This record gives sequence, structure tokens and C-alpha cells, in this order.
Amino acid sequence: MQKEEKPLILVTNDDGITAPGIRHLIKIMNTIGEVVVVAPDRPQSGMGHAITISDNLYCDPVTIDKYSQIKEFSCSGTPADCVKIGAQEILRRKPDLCVSGINHGSNSSINVIYSGTMSAAVEAGVEGIPAIGFSLLDYSMEANFDHTTKFVKRITESVIKNGLPKGVVLNVNFPKVSDEKLKGVKVCRQANARWQEQFDKRQSPQGRDYYWLSGEFVNQDEGHDTDVEALEDNYVSIVPVKFDLTAHEFMNDLKSWSIHD
Amino acid sequence: MQKEEKPLILVTNDDGITAPGIRHLIKIMNTIGEVVVVAPDRPQSGMGHAITISDNLYCDPVTIDKYSQIKEFSCSGTPADCVKIGAQEILRRKPDLCVSGINHGSNSSINVIYSGTMSAAVEAGVEGIPAIGFSLLDYSMEANFDHTTKFVKRITESVIKNGLPKGVVLNVNFPKVSDEKLKGVKVCRQANARWQEQFDKRQSPQGRDYYWLSGEFVNQDEGHDTDVEALEDNYVSIVPVKFDLTAHEFMNDLKSWSIHD
Repeated sequence: MQKEEKPLILVTNDDGITAPGIRHLIKIMNTIGEVVVVAPDRPQSGMGHAITISDNLYCDPVTIDKYSQIKEFSCSGTPADCVKIGAQEILRRKPDLCVSGINHGSNSSINVIYSGTMSAAVEAGVEGIPAIGFSLLDYSMEANFDHTTKFVKRITESVIKNGLPKGVVLNVNFPKVSDEKLKGVKVCRQANARWQEQFDKRQSPQGRDYYWLSGEFVNQDEGHDTDVEALEDNYVSIVPVKFDLTAHEFMNDLKSWSIHD
Repeated sequence: MQKEEKPLILVTNDDGITAPGIRHLIKIMNTIGEVVVVAPDRPQSGMGHAITISDNLYCDPVTIDKYSQIKEFSCSGTPADCVKIGAQEILRRKPDLCVSGINHGSNSSINVIYSGTMSAAVEAGVEGIPAIGFSLLDYSMEANFDHTTKFVKRITESVIKNGLPKGVVLNVNFPKVSDEKLKGVKVCRQANARWQEQFDKRQSPQGRDYYWLSGEFVNQDEGHDTDVEALEDNYVSIVPVKFDLTAHEFMNDLKSWSIHD
């Protein structure tokens, strides 16, 4: 493949540009295409699809490690901001692909709506760029990403080859297991699960009450085709994710309500 | 209706607890049920479904205006945080309904994914609480909400009466028109539209480049059943919104890809 034919790949994440997960992803992408990194200058987990509209953004070139023969930019914004500014300001042309991650922590099931990693992929999808979010079910900054390499490469190359339908991006999650235990890939639907919140109420030294959000993940889904079940069974889960949120199946019912003039 | 039968309504927004839009919404909800307000202590527009996981949350009782015979709490978190802490910590029981808004500005079309207003409604939906997000297509803090009253009341009462299917919340947008010009209500799908970003590049007094995000809303949808078209035609738009983001229609194709072991 000649140099000018290499796909142009925008890489971002939500754990920040120095996180081991994105460094691993950059290393893999470097074997596939021409890589440009635009990623947050600090952790942005749980940012959902936040964008920065009341503040300005910095986006400075940086050199992080030996893979920085490629272009890297550290951005003061959210993951969605990184994609917007990457695609519009930094890249010389529309990228052929956007990959986000590898997130330190699960983005399976309902986590997709809280996820900065996936918001970056969705933002790229909105802009017409094929996109994949990758996550590993291990929150540790010492997480081992070795077993992800083969599948990240294979899935990425498949997306470049096949494309993705308009309005669809991929949400890929990896179980925390050794290479030998990984059983393969499963195409899944998003499990119906939620966080059962608990708030830890404390008092500041000044006597003001405050809270820490914590909680327990509760899978309410009994189906056998979900991402949560695949991951528990040591499969890589792939959920195709769309951002037309319309509940088409409820539209007719709603039309029958007596709310119309 | 006896007092103990009144529905318990959690009210929130993303423009902050003192914004005229939420004050108007509180006034209407006060005629329908027992109201508890848990809303951000400052504007949180564009926060998407962000949640606060690396910082603590304050949630203090406040008195804002004459409608504060009801319970109000000002929260340092995002709209999604407000719903979590409201439902788990503040309310004595699970609310019968959560309403969010009335937002100063449109949440039609793709704006639903950036919207703090809708993230609050979606968060409530995830927690099994029927929920509605209301928005007015007028960003001004002097916006006129008079024409929204009748429809907000009617839609809210319909949701209380009929309930909503599991996994569905409503996204209601109002055009910026006078009462007489409002033609009624239309059940719509989310228009396929996007923001065409432009970044305004400037230099700080210290010589560092920075950017302001701006952009133009582009409707790429030619259908006649979209929220954008209904609003342009002076209808109130209602889109049923779901948070199972799975693109079910693409699962079979994806299963045929050569990514499986």
C-alpha cells in the first residue's frame, strides 16, 4: 500500500492523552494508517456527550512518547470537543476513521450514555466519519491491554474495508482476561441494566453536607444476546450504536393521545 | 383529588435553578402535583449526559421565589446528577414523574445528544420514572413562555394518566411564536441534522492560540415527519426518545463480518 493510500485515522479517548489505553490504541493504529491524535489534556470520564460552549478551547501540539512521530494534540475540551476540533481544525481532510479509547473501564450496556469514550465515537458518526469506541473492563491504570491487540486491529480493518451504515458506530468492549481465555467476538445488543445509586453523605470541616456518588451496576436483562452476558462469558462484545434516539415503535400510540388540537 | 393522591413531581433543568424556564415549569407543575425541585446551581447547557464521579456534590435547600412553598434544592452537579440525587436522597419516595426544562433553546433533532435538559429526562427514564424534557426555541433569558403553558399541562397530565412504555421518555420542543400562531402538537421523529462546526481561532494576550466553538445547524433531512419541520411549521413537536441505542437493524450484517474466531 502506498503512503498516500493509507487511511487517515483520528484517535481520541476520555481518560486523557497520556493514559495507557490510548497509547496502546495509537500503537495499533500506527500499523494500519496515518494517525493524528486529538485527546483531552486530563481525564474526562463520565462526561457523556458534553461539549464546551461557554469557554474557549486550547488544542496544543505535544510529544508524549516514541509514537509521537505522529501528530498529537492535547485539548482542554471534552472527548466530543476533541472530535469536532480534530475534524474541523487540525486534520487536513476528513478522516477515514475515528477510534476512541481504549477506555479504562466498561462502556457496556447503559454505560454508553455516560461514556466520554462513546460520545467521541458518536460525535464522529454524526459528522459522517466511521467510528469505533473501544473499552476494557479494567479501571486500573496498570491494566493489561495485550489481549485486545488482535481484535482491535481486526475490527478496525473490517470497518475500513466494509464501512458502516450512516448513523451507526460501534461500541466494542473487552473482558478483563488473559489472551488464552478470550473466546472470540460476539455481536450483541445493549443490555437493559442501570446503576443503582447510593450517595455517601458526609460533612465538610465547615459543617456543610456534601455527597459522593457511588452505586452498584444492576443487570435487569434476562436475554442471552446482550453485551453484559457476552463479556461475562469472556467474549469481546460489539454493539452497533445509533444516535437516532426516536422510539419509532411508540409513535402511533402517542398519536392517539388526546394532546392534539 | 385528595392531597395524598397528588402525583409527586421532580423538576429539574440545565439552565440553572433560577432560570425563567424552570420557574415557569414549576408554576405549571404546582397546579398538577406535589413538586420537589432539584436543579443545578448554575447553567449546565451542553453538558450532555455528564455525571460527577471525581468530585463531591453539594445539594442545599434554597428559597427562590413565591413558589418556594415547595421544596427546592440547588445542586452543584449536572442535570443527570440532579435526578440521581433527587430520586435517591432528597425525595421520600420514587417520584411519579420527572420534568426537565423549560430549556432556553432548541433540543430538537441531534441536539438531544448534547442536551443537559434531555439527559435529565433520560436519566429519570433509566431509573424507571416517566419523564419529559421541555424546550423552547428561544435562547434569550427574556424568552416568553406564555404559549407553552397549555401544552405543558396537557402533555404532562397525559403522561401521568397514560404512563410511558419502559425505556421511553418524551422530548417536547416549542416554536418561538405567539399563542395564536401555535397550530397544535405533532408527534415526530428526530430529524437527521447536525452542527456544521466552525472554530474561531484567536490568540491570548500571552500569545497562545485558543478556539471558540461555533457553528451552523444544518438539516439534512428531507422527510416531512421530523421535529425540525414541525417546529418550522409552528407546531409543538413531541419525539419519543429511547436509550437503548442498539442499531438492531445492523446486527445481522455485522455478524457476517470476518471478525469472529
